[in-house]
Amino acid sequence: MGEDYTLAAKIRVRYSETDQMKVVYNANYLDWFEITRTELCRGWGRDYKEWENEGFMLPVAEAYCRYKNPARYDDLIELWGRVAELKVHSIKFEYRIVNASDGKLLAWGWTKQACTDSEGKLLRGEHAFYKWVLSVMENEKRQEQQADCLLTR
Amino acid sequence: MGEDYTLAAKIRVRYSETDQMKVVYNANYLDWFEITRTELCRGWGRDYKEWENEGFMLPVAEAYCRYKNPARYDDLIELWGRVAELKVHSIKFEYRIVNASDGKLLAWGWTKQACTDSEGKLLRGEHAFYKWVLSVMENEKRQEQQADCLLTR
Amino acid sequence: MGEDYTLAAKIRVRYSETDQMKVVYNANYLDWFEITRTELCRGWGRDYKEWENEGFMLPVAEAYCRYKNPARYDDLIELWGRVAELKVHSIKFEYRIVNASDGKLLAWGWTKQACTDSEGKLLRGEHAFYKWVLSVMENEKRQEQQADCLLTR
Amino acid sequence: MGEDYTLAAKIRVRYSETDQMKVVYNANYLDWFEITRTELCRGWGRDYKEWENEGFMLPVAEAYCRYKNPARYDDLIELWGRVAELKVHSIKFEYRIVNASDGKLLAWGWTKQACTDSEGKLLRGEHAFYKWVLSVMENEKRQEQQADCLLTR
Repeated sequence: MGEDYTLAAKIRVRYSETDQMKVVYNANYLDWFEITRTELCRGWGRDYKEWENEGFMLPVAEAYCRYKNPARYDDLIELWGRVAELKVHSIKFEYRIVNASDGKLLAWGWTKQACTDSEGKLLRGEHAFYKWVLSVMENEKRQEQQADCLLTR
Repeated sequence: MGEDYTLAAKIRVRYSETDQMKVVYNANYLDWFEITRTELCRGWGRDYKEWENEGFMLPVAEAYCRYKNPARYDDLIELWGRVAELKVHSIKFEYRIVNASDGKLLAWGWTKQACTDSEGKLLRGEHAFYKWVLSVMENEKRQEQQADCLLTR
Repeated sequence: MGEDYTLAAKIRVRYSETDQMKVVYNANYLDWFEITRTELCRGWGRDYKEWENEGFMLPVAEAYCRYKNPARYDDLIELWGRVAELKVHSIKFEYRIVNASDGKLLAWGWTKQACTDSEGKLLRGEHAFYKWVLSVMENEKRQEQQADCLLTR
Repeated sequence: MGEDYTLAAKIRVRYSETDQMKVVYNANYLDWFEITRTELCRGWGRDYKEWENEGFMLPVAEAYCRYKNPARYDDLIELWGRVAELKVHSIKFEYRIVNASDGKLLAWGWTKQACTDSEGKLLRGEHAFYKWVLSVMENEKRQEQQADCLLTR
């Protein structure tokens, strides 16, 4: 499911994101993970804010980041993401943060989000967001298989 | 009204608040202004969150900051504040940001907040928050006058 | 000088920029002002980071913001800016923050920056950054006048 | 080594730390982890900034956080921390974020920091910071053993 990463967005490092080591402060990568999720949803055809407006929420339950190389002020950054795991009550995203100018991997990580209603209560039955992501994933898989077919002919 | 500043809180500069100039990034002073408001309210006897829980809000309408000297990581900072102006539909706070170790003024500024209901609609009639701050201010004034009396005897 | 505002950048409101009033927290507008400065410089032909690499700095001395309408998560935001005043030892920028979908003005403001060396010492003589911005401004003015000529023929 | 957590600091949740879910935004917990490290060092007798002033740095190489319960605006928060692993070129801290009013665990996590010089180069030989933390850990262990002795007599 979602074998390959999608380029979700390109951003510029903001001055406010640096710290006195002259690199991006570690917590800001979690902001970038959120941007990646937002833009993945937009690419799938429905903005995340619409899901939230309907009373669906994806609070972060776990977050992990491995910092490989520093990002610096004004660097152009690529945010890559994919769905690593989809369950009725949770979804796991994986991220790759890449320097756009040289392709260097700056960080990778993942977050696990709970699927809840607007009160923060875990959803149990198959809900609209779950079905939507599932169909997106299946579509992507089909397209990859078709691409494989073409390559191996 | 509120001639003198009150020491609302002492905070430590966080690493995340610095930028690559090795000083506190300018926007963070507005966070410190908010802490000052929160702690002034607490000192007056009612937490700001209680006002907000009752459907009252104080969105910032204007903010100004004059940066005099840099704050650095791990500096101990004093947050001083006072009410500069109170109207039914707005309240203006003034702030002084001071380095606790040498008393140096780092910045001063002010914010003007609108007094609104939970929908963001401006309040017109005399509301509970207005009356409360007014009584706090009058108490402070009375105490200052009494102090002046004692001094001039 | 710089009568008209330039569209410096378009950004999306990040989830991390919202607060519990469900709108963008006031301090984040100062981050957006910084992005505007960065992108104005890029548009003028030389990245701000290059100036800083050469030992030039523009610490914020004053900041003002007037909040007119709230920005919300995922809103597309236009950052407009212009130089309002240029002196050897300071430069004043003005900003307009606009909702891209309906053109509504969300906030406007200004910052005054000191022109300093890498130690934070004020520059006195005419320095390279001053001359550069001056020539940019004069070019813009000339182009505006030419445009006026064309219009009035 | 460092079996038990130390209460490093108590902080108040800032308005700026909330997001539109009306809880603390996930990335801010990494800021709180940093505060914990800073205050642990202070408690051990030498401020982290002094280490950094001498050309020693602790950039974050990995970070993990498990979010259990939401923190809200104005909550009083306890930051607990301990050293989980000490090597010449890295140190791992563990954290527990607790609501001070009811003792509820809000989050726990860990970070692994690299021990580098001011250029970001990994330190290989036994350096001053390593020896210092080692001696702190051994002292704590000795005191725990003495406490155990007293208890078992």
